[in-house]
Amino acid sequence: MDYEPKWYARLLTTATGFYFDEEEFLRAGERIFNLERYFNVREGLDGRYDTLPIRLLKEPMPYGPAEGHVVELETMLDEYYALRSWDPLGRPTDRLLMRLGIIREPRWPKLQVALDLRDLGEALRIAELAYLGGADWIEVGTPLVKSVGMEAVRALRRRLPGATIIADLKTLDTGWLETELAAQAGADVVCISGLAHDNTVRDAVGCARKYGVKIMADLLQVPDPVGRARELEALGVDYVCAHTGIDVQRDRAEEIDRKVAMLAELARSIRIPLAAAGGIRADTARKVVSAGVKIVVVGGAITRAADPRRAVELILKSMGKR
Amino acid sequence: MDYEPKWYARLLTTATGFYFDEEEFLRAGERIFNLERYFNVREGLDGRYDTLPIRLLKEPMPYGPAEGHVVELETMLDEYYALRSWDPLGRPTDRLLMRLGIIREPRWPKLQVALDLRDLGEALRIAELAYLGGADWIEVGTPLVKSVGMEAVRALRRRLPGATIIADLKTLDTGWLETELAAQAGADVVCISGLAHDNTVRDAVGCARKYGVKIMADLLQVPDPVGRARELEALGVDYVCAHTGIDVQRDRAEEIDRKVAMLAELARSIRIPLAAAGGIRADTARKVVSAGVKIVVVGGAITRAADPRRAVELILKSMGKR
Repeated sequence: MDYEPKWYARLLTTATGFYFDEEEFLRAGERIFNLERYFNVREGLDGRYDTLPIRLLKEPMPYGPAEGHVVELETMLDEYYALRSWDPLGRPTDRLLMRLGIIREPRWPKLQVALDLRDLGEALRIAELAYLGGADWIEVGTPLVKSVGMEAVRALRRRLPGATIIADLKTLDTGWLETELAAQAGADVVCISGLAHDNTVRDAVGCARKYGVKIMADLLQVPDPVGRARELEALGVDYVCAHTGIDVQRDRAEEIDRKVAMLAELARSIRIPLAAAGGIRADTARKVVSAGVKIVVVGGAITRAADPRRAVELILKSMGKR
Repeated sequence: MDYEPKWYARLLTTATGFYFDEEEFLRAGERIFNLERYFNVREGLDGRYDTLPIRLLKEPMPYGPAEGHVVELETMLDEYYALRSWDPLGRPTDRLLMRLGIIREPRWPKLQVALDLRDLGEALRIAELAYLGGADWIEVGTPLVKSVGMEAVRALRRRLPGATIIADLKTLDTGWLETELAAQAGADVVCISGLAHDNTVRDAVGCARKYGVKIMADLLQVPDPVGRARELEALGVDYVCAHTGIDVQRDRAEEIDRKVAMLAELARSIRIPLAAAGGIRADTARKVVSAGVKIVVVGGAITRAADPRRAVELILKSMGKR
């Protein structure tokens, strides 16, 4: 009998009493499949175990249309993982698991790789290396946004469908319009300036709710970070980011301990996750995380590294993620 | 004798004692030609008098390769004015006159048309209409920058070579990089946020000096506008902009008189030209100018007008410019 998904959906509705349409039926399958995979990965069975019998990989096919070929496993797995929205190690990404309702929150702490560059090609190259290294939160930095606009978000979304993409707009006005731009381009998180008027923050939050994206508010240049962070939380912002600007880092060689104490105070002052940005490197990431920071934003230490992938791996290790 | 520009340049150097290379020789010609035109326009002889004998315009050519044609004067004048960097009325623009050293400062007050849109095509359409209406300061608004990046500046520069282009980046960090982006794309003025750290402002100013562009600092959300305006002036900023944000305008129906008093105080507090933005319309532009504002920034009242060209003409009239 020729049974189509819509018939299965009706059977499932009848059997369970929960309403399934065709789309929800297919999503249930995706959820089951990914839940299994998520379980396996947790137990250590990640992409390293996705293989085939040695004969298929080593012995060329002696006849037929594939004569002379072996299975190109690596290439095919990369494509398969991308189609599944899994990361390059074959692990379901936070973005996928949240969409399927398997997890409610990202698996903190997260490393957010900030691409504060002006060239899109270079940004995409580094993003892919960072993603290969295990970073699945990728930020389109403000200079990149101003250089090429939302095309940066669209290109990154096409290239890394499983990644969580943050658009750092540092919005100061027209909160709805700018959030909408980024959401429609495929961003998951839109970063606005905490210096913006409350109306702008409210508009950004309202627009984010409509599109199912998150708002991060940046405390760069905010005179009273703790007080403003609380206000931003009350305004409905999802994340707050403590941020020392690039132009300031060069003459403010803060001792890490003072910075960490400030981050710990901020983290205690709000219930929403705290991000931290500005001069964080592999050797300081651990302390930042132990201060209660959930999102560790790293730019230059990755984008200017000779080996960005290795840099990501070291930072993740320092964060206790590998 | 076959005399090339470089020979004239040598003759001129010998005759005057001032050093002329070929480029400077050609510029001297351009300066003379434009100075004449500038004089004529001041006396009322603008593009309306650029015409040809009626026979060339009305009687089709009876023979030869142009048989059956008349001179398409309007079309040819538009192209000619654009090549000359004159405005659509055949008048040398401030940008040209300043480049040639004929004037040192723009002819204040200026109307700056803010294109706070997300679609580049629509922005270019309105920019051309505004330019036809007599506005030669055109602002690429922040949402447009974030939507399509510096392509907006490049496209506007190609379309309106005589216009002064302002890139409203509202820069909060990486002052050098962002100013460089806009300057290289063809902007004449780069607008940064007055909320930025002094290092960022200094970097933006330094980069602007290198590229021969101007920095405007925006007082949007600045708690102490007068104090900060003075600081920004001391940091080397060229213009300061008093700005009521779009998201704030809807619930702050300030009486115009209070606003004008605030602008007058600001204008008195600094020596550099003051810009004003936020909800200015034809009926209020006059008061804003009389408060000492040199750059009147108007967005919605032009971009949302049924007839943007007419809206520009009315505002310019209110500013005493027509």
